[in-house]
Amino acid sequence: MDDIEIEAVEETTLSDPVLIEGLPGVGNVGKLAVEHLLEEFEDATLVKRVYADCFPPQVTIEDGTAELTHVELHAVETPGEGPDLLLLTGDHQAQSNEGHYHLTDVFLDIAEEFGVERLFALGGVPTGELVDEPAVLGAVANESQVETLEDAGVEFRDDEPAGGIVGVSGLLLGMGSRRGLDAACLMGETSGYLVDPHSAQVVIEVLQELLSFEVGFEALEERADEMKEVAQKIQEMQQQQSLPSDDDLRYIG
Amino acid sequence: MDDIEIEAVEETTLSDPVLIEGLPGVGNVGKLAVEHLLEEFEDATLVKRVYADCFPPQVTIEDGTAELTHVELHAVETPGEGPDLLLLTGDHQAQSNEGHYHLTDVFLDIAEEFGVERLFALGGVPTGELVDEPAVLGAVANESQVETLEDAGVEFRDDEPAGGIVGVSGLLLGMGSRRGLDAACLMGETSGYLVDPHSAQVVIEVLQELLSFEVGFEALEERADEMKEVAQKIQEMQQQQSLPSDDDLRYIG
Amino acid sequence: MDDIEIEAVEETTLSDPVLIEGLPGVGNVGKLAVEHLLEEFEDATLVKRVYADCFPPQVTIEDGTAELTHVELHAVETPGEGPDLLLLTGDHQAQSNEGHYHLTDVFLDIAEEFGVERLFALGGVPTGELVDEPAVLGAVANESQVETLEDAGVEFRDDEPAGGIVGVSGLLLGMGSRRGLDAACLMGETSGYLVDPHSAQVVIEVLQELLSFEVGFEALEERADEMKEVAQKIQEMQQQQSLPSDDDLRYIG
Amino acid sequence: MDDIEIEAVEETTLSDPVLIEGLPGVGNVGKLAVEHLLEEFEDATLVKRVYADCFPPQVTIEDGTAELTHVELHAVETPGEGPDLLLLTGDHQAQSNEGHYHLTDVFLDIAEEFGVERLFALGGVPTGELVDEPAVLGAVANESQVETLEDAGVEFRDDEPAGGIVGVSGLLLGMGSRRGLDAACLMGETSGYLVDPHSAQVVIEVLQELLSFEVGFEALEERADEMKEVAQKIQEMQQQQSLPSDDDLRYIG
Repeated sequence: MDDIEIEAVEETTLSDPVLIEGLPGVGNVGKLAVEHLLEEFEDATLVKRVYADCFPPQVTIEDGTAELTHVELHAVETPGEGPDLLLLTGDHQAQSNEGHYHLTDVFLDIAEEFGVERLFALGGVPTGELVDEPAVLGAVANESQVETLEDAGVEFRDDEPAGGIVGVSGLLLGMGSRRGLDAACLMGETSGYLVDPHSAQVVIEVLQELLSFEVGFEALEERADEMKEVAQKIQEMQQQQSLPSDDDLRYIG
Repeated sequence: MDDIEIEAVEETTLSDPVLIEGLPGVGNVGKLAVEHLLEEFEDATLVKRVYADCFPPQVTIEDGTAELTHVELHAVETPGEGPDLLLLTGDHQAQSNEGHYHLTDVFLDIAEEFGVERLFALGGVPTGELVDEPAVLGAVANESQVETLEDAGVEFRDDEPAGGIVGVSGLLLGMGSRRGLDAACLMGETSGYLVDPHSAQVVIEVLQELLSFEVGFEALEERADEMKEVAQKIQEMQQQQSLPSDDDLRYIG
Repeated sequence: MDDIEIEAVEETTLSDPVLIEGLPGVGNVGKLAVEHLLEEFEDATLVKRVYADCFPPQVTIEDGTAELTHVELHAVETPGEGPDLLLLTGDHQAQSNEGHYHLTDVFLDIAEEFGVERLFALGGVPTGELVDEPAVLGAVANESQVETLEDAGVEFRDDEPAGGIVGVSGLLLGMGSRRGLDAACLMGETSGYLVDPHSAQVVIEVLQELLSFEVGFEALEERADEMKEVAQKIQEMQQQQSLPSDDDLRYIG
Repeated sequence: MDDIEIEAVEETTLSDPVLIEGLPGVGNVGKLAVEHLLEEFEDATLVKRVYADCFPPQVTIEDGTAELTHVELHAVETPGEGPDLLLLTGDHQAQSNEGHYHLTDVFLDIAEEFGVERLFALGGVPTGELVDEPAVLGAVANESQVETLEDAGVEFRDDEPAGGIVGVSGLLLGMGSRRGLDAACLMGETSGYLVDPHSAQVVIEVLQELLSFEVGFEALEERADEMKEVAQKIQEMQQQQSLPSDDDLRYIG
């Protein structure tokens, strides 16, 4: 077996597609955002699955059947004038340094095959506390990219995120830029304790502005309301006694 | 040396063989089950040994002599009308992500050489407490596989096991299915604290139903009685004072 | 992608160049020293970037833009009679054993391409306490190298550093020597708690003696004064109560 | 660079040589034994150095100069009628599973080049307490090897060592046997807390019996006396207060 294996599920042609990545991460902001887009764009077509020996060696049981760990790419021919989309998501990140690098390299190869010249890696930036009105922070490789993003509501703060951006999102930005792609990270502020559908929504709103598409937000808003209640309960618990364990808090949802 | 090395011990032909895997895991259910079958099928023939640099770098001392870590495949020409069996077992799992993937790939290569089109990966699913009448839970890749297994007594519970199936068992299911094999996991409920010969027996009883073979259970039942006594002693200890250490509990047997 | 990738930024020819390495380490002595030389030699030219899958999989945000983890080599045509310099620095070391070895091998390949026959790996040796007048300790592969270095003020102490020299500095010494290069480690004594600009200065002063160049030290002296204040504050804190956490102490600056 | 690199230092021919391995391990019994043989056989010739990227990435400072981590093979043309010896020792073991396997494979390749057909891997087996008259335990791959070793004073105990033999010693036994070599492990009983020159001596005495050579033991006996004093001091400390830390105990010497 090859270390990384691409399964071609369907062939399709996209028009000036933009790659949008949302793998698990802080607050699962990126993952929730891309999964929401997949629900809203009903004509999304699964085009590729990527399997790799750097993924956790396991199957996930969902809807009664087992699937080997993998990442999926879906093609969306958007109605309207905006670019088509190539959506990348999955349940796991690589489990090793080298794995992150080589997987990202493969994602970029696939993207370039589809004619992608622009990409957005989505994620969350942890603030340590609940945020009512999360900003969307941006990171780019070239100053020339900043203006367009600021016009769409992205905030750039000096030397933030501190500690850089780790994992596939950071590598898509860094390695994508080195390949000459217009690559950017968009990161919704989030507490870091809970999955954050509201932060995912704010990130999508920025993307809508940049890429001229439009989706509904009902499903995300419902989940955001549920999370508000969970957050309230946790605050009450914190006031009463000892903090819930990290396990109670971590990505409830 | 190759990273994974197959030693051909004996040549043999099998008729419509089914691969049955039982490597160490939760409650050692799978391992106990396959080892029991090897005792019961006296004409089982050792056909392959598999060595790998992802195994623990050690020799095991048994019956006075040392053996390099390896996994064994035994061929069983079953009396009666049921399919032949290819039994896979060993004392260790791979020690790395990548190792699990590449070893499973080799196991499937060997299985396909023997004409295997169907496989069962055996294991345990931990319940956290002693179970008198363990169910056998199933996991498959396709819904079409469910009915036959349910008829033989396998239970399918939505989204269980939570957290998926990790290790070679999960990968045999996932990678075997991707190769077009009829692959399933059968997992006996077990506490997770002790080796569980009774759970192994229940899993074999399901296999008997599915594969039309018949073995005795005396050896397993004796071990199960021993484990009952151990379990009782532990319950008394727990009631008296602090829990025994994890080392005392783990796989006593 | 290759495991290690060299990006050629600019071509240049150097005259009898000496490689000077300063990657992150104890007290960041080596890194501060090489970064200081890069500031002082204004005509330094970035000639190579080295990317690798053994680096942390991340981008660093600096001056508003993101850069993929890498190491840089800068060429300096020194005024005066001393040899030219090839300066190697970066923000991260390899994250694995094998990575250290293979990266060092690549650094030596690049150095030899430039005609390097002599190298200095710079670092710090931790004393466990603040040192007012740090010595510069030396390590070499051959006794014949000792005299020249002692004449320039380097101290050689039997079997020090205890525990050897770990990481790229040690490997440049060991692997460089095996390639027939004149390789040495210069290590400024430092507490190990704080970044140490003063120790970096003392190391550069030795290099100046050895390589006949001259730089100013104002920037380093300013930073050293800042660090003195920080060190004093820490001593006061230690006297008052419990030690600050390791995080408070570690490389403040 | 290759992952494992053999440096040919000198050519020599040996007559029916026996490989004797003594790398760091429990009580450093094997290492002390082989180092003692190297001191006693003054005509020992360094024939090979082996470097590897699975070794710790460092240089060791000894006698004022730095050496890159490596393992050494020395050839000994023994006076008298016994076989010649190929002695393998070093300061470090591989740092990864895969490293152990591939290094052992290379050691066996080198051994076979020299015409080795028989090998002894030396080590210690920890008893948990100080032993006045340590036995030498044996492990072999084939029952046929037992008698000769028992006649020389080696003890075979059922299923001991429990947990098998981990590291290069175990692999030399397992992988050497698979290559058709007459391979055995000899393990001196030792506390596990301290380096044990006396246990090393007992192991050499067995080897002398088996291989018809003779060496003096003065140096080892001196070290053993020193260790007796250290052991006594530790026993006094243990009686007075809390146990010394593991670090205080570990391989003092």
